[in-house]
Amino acid sequence: MTPHPNAPRQDFASDNTAGAAPEALQALIDANSGAAASYGEDHFSVRAADLIRETLDADAEVRFVASGTAANAVCLAALCRPFEAVLAHEHAHIVTSETGAPAYFGHGLGLIGLPGASGRIDEAALAAALAEPDSAHHPAPGALSITNTTEYGTLYDNAALGRLTAAAKAGPHPLKVHLDGARAANAAAAGFDLKALASSGVDLFVMGGAKAGMTPTEAIVIFDKALVRRFDARLKQAGQLPSKSRFYSAPWIGMLQTGAYVTHAAHAGAMARKLAALAPFEAAHPVESNAVFLRMTDDALSRLNGAGWSVHPWHGGTSRLMCSWATRDADVEAIVQAMKAVR
Amino acid sequence: MTPHPNAPRQDFASDNTAGAAPEALQALIDANSGAAASYGEDHFSVRAADLIRETLDADAEVRFVASGTAANAVCLAALCRPFEAVLAHEHAHIVTSETGAPAYFGHGLGLIGLPGASGRIDEAALAAALAEPDSAHHPAPGALSITNTTEYGTLYDNAALGRLTAAAKAGPHPLKVHLDGARAANAAAAGFDLKALASSGVDLFVMGGAKAGMTPTEAIVIFDKALVRRFDARLKQAGQLPSKSRFYSAPWIGMLQTGAYVTHAAHAGAMARKLAALAPFEAAHPVESNAVFLRMTDDALSRLNGAGWSVHPWHGGTSRLMCSWATRDADVEAIVQAMKAVR
Amino acid sequence: MTPHPNAPRQDFASDNTAGAAPEALQALIDANSGAAASYGEDHFSVRAADLIRETLDADAEVRFVASGTAANAVCLAALCRPFEAVLAHEHAHIVTSETGAPAYFGHGLGLIGLPGASGRIDEAALAAALAEPDSAHHPAPGALSITNTTEYGTLYDNAALGRLTAAAKAGPHPLKVHLDGARAANAAAAGFDLKALASSGVDLFVMGGAKAGMTPTEAIVIFDKALVRRFDARLKQAGQLPSKSRFYSAPWIGMLQTGAYVTHAAHAGAMARKLAALAPFEAAHPVESNAVFLRMTDDALSRLNGAGWSVHPWHGGTSRLMCSWATRDADVEAIVQAMKAVR
Amino acid sequence: MTPHPNAPRQDFASDNTAGAAPEALQALIDANSGAAASYGEDHFSVRAADLIRETLDADAEVRFVASGTAANAVCLAALCRPFEAVLAHEHAHIVTSETGAPAYFGHGLGLIGLPGASGRIDEAALAAALAEPDSAHHPAPGALSITNTTEYGTLYDNAALGRLTAAAKAGPHPLKVHLDGARAANAAAAGFDLKALASSGVDLFVMGGAKAGMTPTEAIVIFDKALVRRFDARLKQAGQLPSKSRFYSAPWIGMLQTGAYVTHAAHAGAMARKLAALAPFEAAHPVESNAVFLRMTDDALSRLNGAGWSVHPWHGGTSRLMCSWATRDADVEAIVQAMKAVR
Repeated sequence: MTPHPNAPRQDFASDNTAGAAPEALQALIDANSGAAASYGEDHFSVRAADLIRETLDADAEVRFVASGTAANAVCLAALCRPFEAVLAHEHAHIVTSETGAPAYFGHGLGLIGLPGASGRIDEAALAAALAEPDSAHHPAPGALSITNTTEYGTLYDNAALGRLTAAAKAGPHPLKVHLDGARAANAAAAGFDLKALASSGVDLFVMGGAKAGMTPTEAIVIFDKALVRRFDARLKQAGQLPSKSRFYSAPWIGMLQTGAYVTHAAHAGAMARKLAALAPFEAAHPVESNAVFLRMTDDALSRLNGAGWSVHPWHGGTSRLMCSWATRDADVEAIVQAMKAVR
Repeated sequence: MTPHPNAPRQDFASDNTAGAAPEALQALIDANSGAAASYGEDHFSVRAADLIRETLDADAEVRFVASGTAANAVCLAALCRPFEAVLAHEHAHIVTSETGAPAYFGHGLGLIGLPGASGRIDEAALAAALAEPDSAHHPAPGALSITNTTEYGTLYDNAALGRLTAAAKAGPHPLKVHLDGARAANAAAAGFDLKALASSGVDLFVMGGAKAGMTPTEAIVIFDKALVRRFDARLKQAGQLPSKSRFYSAPWIGMLQTGAYVTHAAHAGAMARKLAALAPFEAAHPVESNAVFLRMTDDALSRLNGAGWSVHPWHGGTSRLMCSWATRDADVEAIVQAMKAVR
Repeated sequence: MTPHPNAPRQDFASDNTAGAAPEALQALIDANSGAAASYGEDHFSVRAADLIRETLDADAEVRFVASGTAANAVCLAALCRPFEAVLAHEHAHIVTSETGAPAYFGHGLGLIGLPGASGRIDEAALAAALAEPDSAHHPAPGALSITNTTEYGTLYDNAALGRLTAAAKAGPHPLKVHLDGARAANAAAAGFDLKALASSGVDLFVMGGAKAGMTPTEAIVIFDKALVRRFDARLKQAGQLPSKSRFYSAPWIGMLQTGAYVTHAAHAGAMARKLAALAPFEAAHPVESNAVFLRMTDDALSRLNGAGWSVHPWHGGTSRLMCSWATRDADVEAIVQAMKAVR
Repeated sequence: MTPHPNAPRQDFASDNTAGAAPEALQALIDANSGAAASYGEDHFSVRAADLIRETLDADAEVRFVASGTAANAVCLAALCRPFEAVLAHEHAHIVTSETGAPAYFGHGLGLIGLPGASGRIDEAALAAALAEPDSAHHPAPGALSITNTTEYGTLYDNAALGRLTAAAKAGPHPLKVHLDGARAANAAAAGFDLKALASSGVDLFVMGGAKAGMTPTEAIVIFDKALVRRFDARLKQAGQLPSKSRFYSAPWIGMLQTGAYVTHAAHAGAMARKLAALAPFEAAHPVESNAVFLRMTDDALSRLNGAGWSVHPWHGGTSRLMCSWATRDADVEAIVQAMKAVR
């Protein structure tokens, strides 16, 4: 179930530079037989949704879409009106790396960045933002967006997530909550109980497929049934109701019925811990899943990339190395050697 | 290269209910090896773009996206401002079947439906629309959208397409032109010369992958180089800059380097002609590619679908039957038998 | 209270080519004293809102805005999601004459035009539109928009309006209802009971000021209290929360406390009836308020405008003549003479 | 030409809490005679546009609109695409106080806030922002927005403004430039040469009417002729093409042909200098026009407002006091006394 030992070297640029895991690819191949209904009405999509409901122990609606950026943006547009704002960590992907997709899909909706160490929203900062009086002159909070695992590879455990959603929903006008789970598999592998999510106060959950080792696919899980009506029309208008939908649902079948969704993420986490343990640079954030942030000098980083690696500089003078289902011990050992050479 | 003879029966509901052709699937499998850059910077995307340029004999930019609806809408948003309108056939997919995606991606842009027999825009109607004086009180034409082959399976030959684009560009304020080529393969198979497209006045061309027999993928071909700058940011914001981009480009490699892109469409066209020839109902439109529209009574249609087929009613009291790369002689014969039974 | 007998001739191009009635202008002048709070928190806005509530016998929220087009579009955006459509008469101002403002403010929302004689929505057509099954592939009805008096100067009486709103709200998913009352004064003068509006099923009512004889101002009346929260932020974002708000509310004080709001509209109606009675062309629609549509040949219309009048051609080979609070008997007589000369 | 000595006390909450200056109001009254064309085609609008061209010594197109927020947002939407960002001072009104209007009118466009002392953009910060490499993953600069006078009442002189626009236009892809001149009258009174604006690199200029002492109106001055085509359709769709346009243009006639546009602003500036000189608190920013920012404790501010004044707290622990055309010596003396009492 690990990649072929002679496959080309895996890089650490991102967990989206790996290919598809064997379980996902095989399921896609298996689904390529005969005619199947389109636009999500195929039996692969039904089966995959059932497996997600089972994984989450939840009576939720599930849709399969092509893009995580679009999935997040469509969800935020569903939860927040154009003159309202989404509260999110100031370094959340929706804030820093989606080219204004939330405001594009959400017709101008605002983003309010909250501080917090190592990618986790500071609870006091959230409380302060929620306590701000409404004004007609700037966007007031309309929704909360949480990312788990975070941009820094750290984890909200179930209790921490529950405290955030409880705060968001405590007032006279409860906020809706979006969970960006591009790395939900990594969260699960790190101990987050997915079966407790349905009762955690999350309304819309984007459950990541691509970074978990699938061909492109993300699942939108709709916990709040009031949001279901005409959600397919919402997706269609947003270019996210795939015609050949079987190819977006089939990989989930392969990954969930084998357990590979979590075991591959556990492997990625193990590789990250090994990398952090061996690396000749200090870790800048706790290594709780598949991300390792190292305090590397610009010069060292430059020489490392010059040696054929592709490592991205990040906020705060750190460098990000991501492990994936496809990272092998040999890959870790190779980059550790390379880092030692450039230090 | 045809589907396995014992595969489940292909239906005629749409050309998107077929799976992926072997050439596309194999290329996808082949691409699943080792790490590859994301966001279109992988070598599969480079190779596929080269093959498209070769197919079109054009120096054009190419991007691979997940959705035809989104591809059309993103292109129209690039060509037309929110207070302007797109001229299109009144039964074009962008007008009737995309849930307002052009206005969503284009921030309110209008659509002006033009009449024309069997899905082809009437040239006099286009001329009349172009001759309308501008007004501040309703959207004036900002772009022309052409579909080839059309919603009715008819073809614009190169000359007919050229007359439409010439009309659109004749005035003091030339319109930009979008070509919805969801079925460009079928057009090519029916005699349309793709190599002449670059000089035809089309600015943005959506070249269809899914309906041609690929896993989900569409190519956006940018003929007008002035549109290239920041197009990737446009795609990213619209949720159409795929991270694992190799899976959207690889199928093109398989289909183009084998010629399957056109030969499969030619097969689909042959099946449609056979179907029209044998069917016990009259064809409502010329059968020029893979679509057959039959004048079936509601009652006959209802009984046909009751017998396990899935055939859609269409405008004007007709029923639509689509053939694909996967349609077999036996499938055609089976539905012909079924139609005879319900007549 | 009528315009000065020696004032320049009033034309019949529109009821917005007249100036402000004396009651409106005097109230504006009276309000120009000392400091006043901005953004609707001034005491003129409070007083004007009270007068509107009194006029409507309703416990409603009221906002004063600059533009009828924007008021309509903001309301539709509040009632209808981007992937839904507004049902409206096919010749309603929002459909024909607002340059896509509803789709711009509403982020792509659709408009479904309904037929109906002389501008009144045909009840059977509404029923048929409401009975259409939902689909993910085109916008389904999300709101109903009614115009009273209509684009053709005809009136919905209270019972007719109630039948439309009842139909819209009868299903399991009641539609929200918008009333475009750009000519609500004319409706009231023609017998529509404004005091019954609050119980009629209308959720948002744009109550027209400009065409009733005020300086630019329109009132948005929010009957559905669930829509009030953050409505000011909605207006601010849409550029419709005026800073010097007293100038948008004061005219209402002058017009409502004197009764001029309705008496001027009654005068306009009387002028229209006189015009229809004397005109040498046949009326194309019932003359129920201040609009007269005449069956004039293109040639006659051209010569009439050549003689210095400004009369607009309309749908169906008719010409539209509008009377206003400022139209005098002499103006009517003058244009009747001119029409006789060009017949 | 100053307000009546017995008029109610003027407050210092904003320069929009004053009424209309006599010159503006009289011109509005004078315009209220007979019929006038609508939608900007009236002769008052022609005359007012001529006067603005004369004031600016420029061959520019001019439009009159109701709202400054909308005017800014419409202009930014004209200059910047949805996936691009507007560079502006981090405390500019468009960034802090317009509830996301730029992103609403501009369909998600981003705002990049630049630092700079006392509201003036730091030139090095602008250069750094312009030097950032493009990326598909976040919005790159598409336009520059400058405010003069600034949110802190400071002035860019012509040379400083020219340096900013020159920087914005220096690269291979020159940025478009928007000037928010809500307080352009105050800038002119402080020495800014309006006649040099046309050659300064500004493409769209919002010339403020309301804060200069008019009834609600703002002028959009289009220096870049390439932006003129279909600008009226743009305005109409945005709810900013007023029907009774004479009421938005007439005040300009009164204010410009008398010179009151600048002399009233000069008076406001003199009142601000007097206020700063007498106030018992230190000024936090240079007093260069009609704004005074005082370092007042929260407690003092609270007591001052408790005594019936309305003074707003501002960024950085300061309080903002605005003077207007209507501020009298007695008003200044009264608030100075009040401040002394609460110190």
